Amino acid sequence: MAVDIRTQGLQKPVSVAEYLFARLYEIGIRSVHGVPGDFNLVALDFLPKAKLKWVGSVNELNAAYAADGYARTNGIGALITTFGVGELSAMNGIAGSFSEHVPVVHIVGCPSTVSQRNGMLLHHTLGNGDFSVFANMSSQVTCELAKLNKPAEIADQIDNALRECWIRSRPVYLMLPTDMVEKKIEGARLDQPIDLSEPPNDPEREDYVVDVVLRYLHAAKNPVMLVDACAIRHRVLGEVRDLIEKTKLPVFVTPMGKGAIDESSPTYGGVYAGTGSQPGVAERVESSDLVLSIGALKSDFNTTGFSYRTSQLKTIDFHSTHCVVRYSEYPGVTMRGVLRKVTERVDVGKLAKQHEVTKVVNEVAENRDSSDTITQAFFWPRVGEYLKENDIVVTETGTANFGIWETKYPRGVTGVTQILWGSIGWSLPAAQGAALAAKDMGVDRRTILFVGDGSFQLTCQEVAVMIRHNLKITIFLIYNEGFTIERFIHGMEAEYNDISRWQYTEVPTVFGASDKQVRKFIVKTKHELEKLLTDKEFNEAGGLQFVELWMPKEDAPRALRITTEVAARNNAKAE
Amino acid sequence: MAVDIRTQGLQKPVSVAEYLFARLYEIGIRSVHGVPGDFNLVALDFLPKAKLKWVGSVNELNAAYAADGYARTNGIGALITTFGVGELSAMNGIAGSFSEHVPVVHIVGCPSTVSQRNGMLLHHTLGNGDFSVFANMSSQVTCELAKLNKPAEIADQIDNALRECWIRSRPVYLMLPTDMVEKKIEGARLDQPIDLSEPPNDPEREDYVVDVVLRYLHAAKNPVMLVDACAIRHRVLGEVRDLIEKTKLPVFVTPMGKGAIDESSPTYGGVYAGTGSQPGVAERVESSDLVLSIGALKSDFNTTGFSYRTSQLKTIDFHSTHCVVRYSEYPGVTMRGVLRKVTERVDVGKLAKQHEVTKVVNEVAENRDSSDTITQAFFWPRVGEYLKENDIVVTETGTANFGIWETKYPRGVTGVTQILWGSIGWSLPAAQGAALAAKDMGVDRRTILFVGDGSFQLTCQEVAVMIRHNLKITIFLIYNEGFTIERFIHGMEAEYNDISRWQYTEVPTVFGASDKQVRKFIVKTKHELEKLLTDKEFNEAGGLQFVELWMPKEDAPRALRITTEVAARNNAKAE
Repeated sequence: MAVDIRTQGLQKPVSVAEYLFARLYEIGIRSVHGVPGDFNLVALDFLPKAKLKWVGSVNELNAAYAADGYARTNGIGALITTFGVGELSAMNGIAGSFSEHVPVVHIVGCPSTVSQRNGMLLHHTLGNGDFSVFANMSSQVTCELAKLNKPAEIADQIDNALRECWIRSRPVYLMLPTDMVEKKIEGARLDQPIDLSEPPNDPEREDYVVDVVLRYLHAAKNPVMLVDACAIRHRVLGEVRDLIEKTKLPVFVTPMGKGAIDESSPTYGGVYAGTGSQPGVAERVESSDLVLSIGALKSDFNTTGFSYRTSQLKTIDFHSTHCVVRYSEYPGVTMRGVLRKVTERVDVGKLAKQHEVTKVVNEVAENRDSSDTITQAFFWPRVGEYLKENDIVVTETGTANFGIWETKYPRGVTGVTQILWGSIGWSLPAAQGAALAAKDMGVDRRTILFVGDGSFQLTCQEVAVMIRHNLKITIFLIYNEGFTIERFIHGMEAEYNDISRWQYTEVPTVFGASDKQVRKFIVKTKHELEKLLTDKEFNEAGGLQFVELWMPKEDAPRALRITTEVAARNNAKAE
Repeated sequence: MAVDIRTQGLQKPVSVAEYLFARLYEIGIRSVHGVPGDFNLVALDFLPKAKLKWVGSVNELNAAYAADGYARTNGIGALITTFGVGELSAMNGIAGSFSEHVPVVHIVGCPSTVSQRNGMLLHHTLGNGDFSVFANMSSQVTCELAKLNKPAEIADQIDNALRECWIRSRPVYLMLPTDMVEKKIEGARLDQPIDLSEPPNDPEREDYVVDVVLRYLHAAKNPVMLVDACAIRHRVLGEVRDLIEKTKLPVFVTPMGKGAIDESSPTYGGVYAGTGSQPGVAERVESSDLVLSIGALKSDFNTTGFSYRTSQLKTIDFHSTHCVVRYSEYPGVTMRGVLRKVTERVDVGKLAKQHEVTKVVNEVAENRDSSDTITQAFFWPRVGEYLKENDIVVTETGTANFGIWETKYPRGVTGVTQILWGSIGWSLPAAQGAALAAKDMGVDRRTILFVGDGSFQLTCQEVAVMIRHNLKITIFLIYNEGFTIERFIHGMEAEYNDISRWQYTEVPTVFGASDKQVRKFIVKTKHELEKLLTDKEFNEAGGLQFVELWMPKEDAPRALRITTEVAARNNAKAE
């Protein structure tokens, strides 16, 4: 009997691509974004066998943005690009996922190990025989990088990278040479589930921290909780909700934490962001003698330009890598275990009785002026009344990201924002990814996107992907003639903040939507807006809906005005 | 009298932005591509004063592609992006310019030196206080990188970077903090022109190489010249033409060298690319006993998969950094000086008498079949008859890049291709940049783009920029339903090589073109093509013209078929 040396010694030989894609499926991925290129084509053949859907993105940057949106909804996402040209186009998207703690698996189809070893002058190279240069660049914005060059090591590399991706909640990079795609490796490993469990804290150290936390918590007169981005990204919302339920502590969210907490609950107090906070919120948070801060990410745009007036002496920070009580640091003691034990052990009887928080409401009437113009002040509270439970709400980095602070979310809403990285154009592909994730999960949720006209232009062709996959997305395109956030920072009248006027509502049609596939609306007045938002069919959102929403050019949400003033001052700050 | 410490000791104080932009103007830049972002806004204010036009690109990748196209036409280009998000989006475009030796100045507006020093958690950062990470990434694909942090050094840094950009014909990166934009530096330096002169060769070494070259040249029986990419990029076409004129040597071009040589001249012999060469060409080049190879860049797609059958023993290589005669290397002896002296000193009487080269013609009749279908074989020679002197011809990395080998260029045509880097979607913005450069130079040239439908989708919004600047561009969109080059490499019928069907001719309209600004055509047959290509108004190309050109899905140019076969074999090559 002839022995196949390729599979010798393997119990259940599977190809590298089969192994990789089986693992992607196992960790919850159902759709893979990306663009074909000659160095990844053979790998793509293996997707259907693994029950993975190929999205067929319109370009790699959009693919990376979309995989990010997918991951924010589904838990984890993936994209496949090709060496050099493809992966570099995706770089900004991957960096955004890194910055914002979003787990995305970036698989790069690359030249064969033979071509690499011979330093061949191939297309998609710099012409210098260096096949490491792009991986080196990616290593700056990924938490794990694996070059899948040796069959004997590949299964380990894949499992390790996916584990790192999940646990550290950041992108990883897998470099897959064309000649490795079909190499046989041990498939018997797949019988064992991949280990994605977080390493537990050292119990003694953990107990110590829990004791310290409880001591301060039991002694505090008016403790509050403040939930931020990393509570969402590092998946401790279950723990946070248990703690709230047991303690009934007043709870606030930061802009990046918006959506983490049930905003209809009686202890929810609103959005805290220093001077940009919702009315009454800053007073309550800043007068607290103990802030339990969960997963803080205190970036300028998340804090209205570093305008917190809280004291570290009155703060306990819970992080995914460590905890900090006042100024005592506990490296390696991660928040999940600590939060669980705090909930378990807190003595509710010892907690101070507190005033109820001021109920958060959508201040529609308060912001309705006599004109028929749709102002930013009016619009965002009104959106709160239009939203339904379990909606996915995606907001772009401009006006929408700040306006949404004034929107009260119904229960179960997922807020998808990119406030730290803030890459213009991100939201359109991210919305596609989010809607696709919901579809893949088999749940019927509306995905609603708020994007400015300026931002829309950068990544507009993503609409074609929405159409191709028949996604249920409602797009509110804020038509206000340009880069509003930039205008408020510098150059209100400057030509460089202008954009050209498109026929926005026709974009879906030219990108291939039939009249059945898309409903289009142009909304110029409060009256028209009211009519649309109360329309039954519109609310049912059976497919793609595209709303061109007219808002004044020099109008902006309250929080954006304050934040951009600070940003402009920071930029001008002299040595 | 109060002394202004900001300008103390300066003869003619100018701001950093004024200085930088004055230099950009001086080296021939008239338009600057890019996208506004809060870290570059103040700098943008200074563009008009320097008589520089702001393009207002639709996104940063397109801006980089367009700056590349601008540089290929004008000599040098520039773009301005913003820290992190903007610059990373441009990365693939910059890498392409690096790979293909195109001088592009990339200016990145970044946070103030104060914010950087304090490691502030700003938007557009990775949240880790590292402000060097993106510059580090860019250093891999630029030949010079300058952080403009200290006023006293900035003028030197700018002059040095621009000089490197020009001389090495590769991108440079300038990191401009917000607080440096208006800092005063010495403007008196601007009275001295920037020194862009190449360092001359050491005369003795140069003479030595010239002697060796002449010895072989005078002894050769049938020497030929082969002109490649770096002859164009490193600006020795004048020297090459002088040598041709004096010696009357048969001259061939590579695919990346196409456009370098007057194809109507009697000594022009066609495109040499190994097995993909035009008929008769490989025989002539490969039977030559001396190939003078100028600026070779022997990548796979430029050589039909490394299929040259030339011998190094019969080759003299002229490069921008060195020369090689047979196997003798002369590092540091650059081609310009050598070529000049060879032309000066060659004894025409000693040159062998040679057969004339086979005249290159557009083989239209030979490729016309009886059907009305527009085949690839028919189309490209037909294009040769449509082209006019001094046209700018831009071809996308798919079918067009290979088809154009069969097109004979009239005199003065500039060929704009990206064969080594081969980034899909590049050509549309590159065509915009090329047309804008022609407009800026005040010359009336047609810009004609050939782009596939698959490629078009990646960067489609560049059409909006063409409209905004009223550029005269004729776009032939090859409608053949997907990624043809990928189909020929792998997956002829695979779904991942399909794209969605757009209403392509309506794209300019939704992106803002009035009916006056754009003429649209759908061409499905040879008959319709003939009518269009002979239409007077179409040939005059007074504005934007958009042609949807139907070609069969599984058709490809001859050279593409051969090249992709080799590429597929290379990808599959096992260890």
